[in-house]
Amino acid sequence: MESQSQYIGSNSGMDGVDQKEGKVANQRKAGTCESILRILAFMLTLTAAVVLGVSKQTEIVSVKILPTLPPIDVPATAKWHYLSAFVYFVVANAIACAYAAFSLVLLFANRGTKSSLGLVIIFLDQLMVALLFSCNGAAAAIGLMGYQGNSHVQWNKVCNVFGRFCNHAAAAIVLSLLASLVFMYLVGLAALGLHRRSK
Amino acid sequence: MESQSQYIGSNSGMDGVDQKEGKVANQRKAGTCESILRILAFMLTLTAAVVLGVSKQTEIVSVKILPTLPPIDVPATAKWHYLSAFVYFVVANAIACAYAAFSLVLLFANRGTKSSLGLVIIFLDQLMVALLFSCNGAAAAIGLMGYQGNSHVQWNKVCNVFGRFCNHAAAAIVLSLLASLVFMYLVGLAALGLHRRSK
Repeated sequence: MESQSQYIGSNSGMDGVDQKEGKVANQRKAGTCESILRILAFMLTLTAAVVLGVSKQTEIVSVKILPTLPPIDVPATAKWHYLSAFVYFVVANAIACAYAAFSLVLLFANRGTKSSLGLVIIFLDQLMVALLFSCNGAAAAIGLMGYQGNSHVQWNKVCNVFGRFCNHAAAAIVLSLLASLVFMYLVGLAALGLHRRSK
Repeated sequence: MESQSQYIGSNSGMDGVDQKEGKVANQRKAGTCESILRILAFMLTLTAAVVLGVSKQTEIVSVKILPTLPPIDVPATAKWHYLSAFVYFVVANAIACAYAAFSLVLLFANRGTKSSLGLVIIFLDQLMVALLFSCNGAAAAIGLMGYQGNSHVQWNKVCNVFGRFCNHAAAAIVLSLLASLVFMYLVGLAALGLHRRSK
């Protein structure tokens, strides 16, 4: 009877060790997945900021100075810092890119601990979601206006002239949108982890 | 000795009941606070959508049809559905408003349980943060363009003519921004609650 109880005791102890090892392995797997997502967010925001930041297109456009004179051809350039929405877009993506790199450091500092640092990371991730979605909205609204124009406010489309610049802007917006979805997924993943632990 | 142990037992039992009661009271308080925040988000998004949705301004503007003829005065109207960014803004705020009302129902269904419904509410709140911040970015970018204009793309400012409409749009954007901050706060609050429970 005594030996049986000893056996049961040792078996349950083994189970406890197995469970603990399984938990540690799961946490390690989740940490690796999170690191990969943060590296992805870093690359996406960096590429988005660079694609729009370095894009520049110069075209010759006809400008009518006086109604009685024929139009004259002048060179016009499209650059990101001519439009405040694009300035906000590049700056926001640069901030998110710097944060993605910094959050990797925070993640390693928080590994294996149950400190409040995890909560700080969730709040900052959430802030990045807000920042990136607002800059995507701003850039997309101006981009769409440049692509379609609007007769009600008499803003003519400009993408028929600066097509390459508009394509670069569209690509940058898609990249930034993907990055904001990654940050959103990270917040969701962290909430899921906390929910599982709280059960 | 026996009576002492009985006393200790009964005391610890009282503590347990007190703790449980305190926990229930805290949960009730948190639930009430969350309900108030959701009602606030509902009111803010509803007001934002209505303020921009009903705003309309008609002004007489001078339009030059032919360069040789003098300009003629025509009535021009500013409405939310003339600009796609404002359409997106009104629709997004209407969705967030409907969700804020629906989330109150979800909150009551989830009260006192540890089900996955709480997690679903966090994900949906997060979705509202993304939706509202993107629509705020879009409306603010177009609003700023209407307020300042841009010489590089030759888009003239329109707020010098449609000043009242622009003021309404600015007020709606501020209200919507407050609503998105409320949703952001709700996600933070939920994460904090889960973090406390996981300890």
